[in-house]
Amino acid sequence: LQSARKGQSTTNLKDIVQKKLEMLGEKFCADIDRGSFPAIRMKSRSTSNIFYSQELRQYVLGDATITRSSRNIAHLRPLTQMIWTAYFVHELIKQKKTSTLRDVYYSAQAYDIFFKDQSESDNIITDLETAIGHPRESFNVFPEERSAVFGDLTIEYTVPGYEGRRLNLSSHPDGVMIGPALTDAKFIETSADKVIVIEKGAMFTRFVEEKVYENFNAILIYTAGQAPRSTRYFIRRLNRELGLPIYIFTDADPWGMHIAMVIISGSANAAHLTELTTPDAKWAGVWASDIIDYNLPSDRLNDRDIKRLKELKADPRYGDSHWQRQIDIFMKIKKKCELEAFSRYGLTHIVEKYLPERLKELEA
Amino acid sequence: LQSARKGQSTTNLKDIVQKKLEMLGEKFCADIDRGSFPAIRMKSRSTSNIFYSQELRQYVLGDATITRSSRNIAHLRPLTQMIWTAYFVHELIKQKKTSTLRDVYYSAQAYDIFFKDQSESDNIITDLETAIGHPRESFNVFPEERSAVFGDLTIEYTVPGYEGRRLNLSSHPDGVMIGPALTDAKFIETSADKVIVIEKGAMFTRFVEEKVYENFNAILIYTAGQAPRSTRYFIRRLNRELGLPIYIFTDADPWGMHIAMVIISGSANAAHLTELTTPDAKWAGVWASDIIDYNLPSDRLNDRDIKRLKELKADPRYGDSHWQRQIDIFMKIKKKCELEAFSRYGLTHIVEKYLPERLKELEA
Repeated sequence: LQSARKGQSTTNLKDIVQKKLEMLGEKFCADIDRGSFPAIRMKSRSTSNIFYSQELRQYVLGDATITRSSRNIAHLRPLTQMIWTAYFVHELIKQKKTSTLRDVYYSAQAYDIFFKDQSESDNIITDLETAIGHPRESFNVFPEERSAVFGDLTIEYTVPGYEGRRLNLSSHPDGVMIGPALTDAKFIETSADKVIVIEKGAMFTRFVEEKVYENFNAILIYTAGQAPRSTRYFIRRLNRELGLPIYIFTDADPWGMHIAMVIISGSANAAHLTELTTPDAKWAGVWASDIIDYNLPSDRLNDRDIKRLKELKADPRYGDSHWQRQIDIFMKIKKKCELEAFSRYGLTHIVEKYLPERLKELEA
Repeated sequence: LQSARKGQSTTNLKDIVQKKLEMLGEKFCADIDRGSFPAIRMKSRSTSNIFYSQELRQYVLGDATITRSSRNIAHLRPLTQMIWTAYFVHELIKQKKTSTLRDVYYSAQAYDIFFKDQSESDNIITDLETAIGHPRESFNVFPEERSAVFGDLTIEYTVPGYEGRRLNLSSHPDGVMIGPALTDAKFIETSADKVIVIEKGAMFTRFVEEKVYENFNAILIYTAGQAPRSTRYFIRRLNRELGLPIYIFTDADPWGMHIAMVIISGSANAAHLTELTTPDAKWAGVWASDIIDYNLPSDRLNDRDIKRLKELKADPRYGDSHWQRQIDIFMKIKKKCELEAFSRYGLTHIVEKYLPERLKELEA
């Protein structure tokens, strides 16, 4: 059994974020004590300052900065909102509670801080992510959507009431949810040597039923479409902390490809964050070429699919030759297909034939 | 601790369904042996044969029947498709595998049975539900979407590889998924005296963090919007087998009301089934009247909301005076609000004030 190498990392992360929030507050107080207007300088998130980094294989912010100062009347409102938000999430961490974007929006009203709508409060939280340099999940603001995991990984909880308790993630064959408790858990031990990420619930259940976790030593993750941010963070941890390779299976269409890509390289609007990507994760299928090679039942690409493929073709994240080739094949055959299409050859075909062939190919 | 009263029921259900499928096959064979055209008679699902039953508090089918006979060339295709589908799901039960609607559509191609699209195969599965009298989950065709549960309930698995293994559903604070394994599990023991069903992930997490399961002896269920059928079946089992009252919390708008109503009284297109409803479950909030009584932050109803409220007003499932009154209040104040709106009074307000007041009111 493999032991987790950096099991302490999340606990440390919370401490670091708490410290950074406190430093932010101390800085404002010091400004006031010195008789100067409180202000904060942070990286600009304007599109002109977003660049694709070949090295990090994700979008990043450039060097342009903006200063938000209480000297400027136009800045007073967002600055005040940001200071309150920093206070609020600091309380969340201290009290070990979690929240959501929607919840933060309403909570502000308890403090007579008003946002005109949720997009205003969401934007301030993104400012705070930029200033602190960590995703909102690290200050306990979690997404509404949830996905699930199944496999031989023993974790240890750090959330109140569960501190020190352990669970093996193969305890429940339908999968356990990836929420705040799992996000902050320590990784203790695993016998797995890979992670298989699956877009569809049907295939996740098929992989559990066909004992992929045992026969392929895999931890299985179900994303339920586009992976929620906390799931992308969890996948990154499995890759970084346990050194496990990540294989992503999606439908063979531009939307499936992009589910894989967002796990691998993130999105442009998270260019201010580097903790949500897993650049070494691999899109393992279903490829456009698989539609031909495995003679899979398919549907015709529609106009929206084709428009999207053209966008992806020009996207720097898709610069690699494998991605480019798959996009070209999609365009040529004008077909797409779903993970379930393998059932055309019987329910177990995908696990007994396709999966081992693909893993062998990718591991080579 | 309370022990489950009818812990064996799901195992028996699978046996019953398997037997019914076999009887269906034997009937076709007997028809052929007798030299007559194989045929099946079943209740008509045409809208003229769908009625609301005050007694069952759900839509049911009337006495009109249809006969599908191989004597009629126009019936040959759907009859053949239905026989194959019955064979396929019988195999699923025998091999203890599960599938989805999408998967059944593709699997047919492995047997040279063709459906022109998924709606055709979905329809045949509904025919089979009608003929057998049990929901498709009972013959292992599960929904793609999943929801979650958390609370003190010990279950015992019956799925392959897990037979006899037990799990307490409070083992994972993010919740465990309600999928095939949980649907077929036996209920062993619980200390809970109620079930609280919640539409939103944020509130589910809040209820876990604020220890509602402990302080209110509740099993918590997260539906993620409209409850998937397997979740409705699971809620019914908690009510019927364990005798637990069910309280449903949704947003205060017509869509939230209807999430509660579908759990309580089902939908018109499941009029052929009686195992998916929980007529004694209660919509516990957020009511239109709560927006006024608790002075909650609200949004204006839009045209779609108002149109929907008018439909619900005329819907026989909403005949009860409490529903009618709430619809009238919505119409009058022209406002809606979300579960998260309680955060306006602090994160714990909903659990510390609203929840106990509402439960007291409903239990009175």
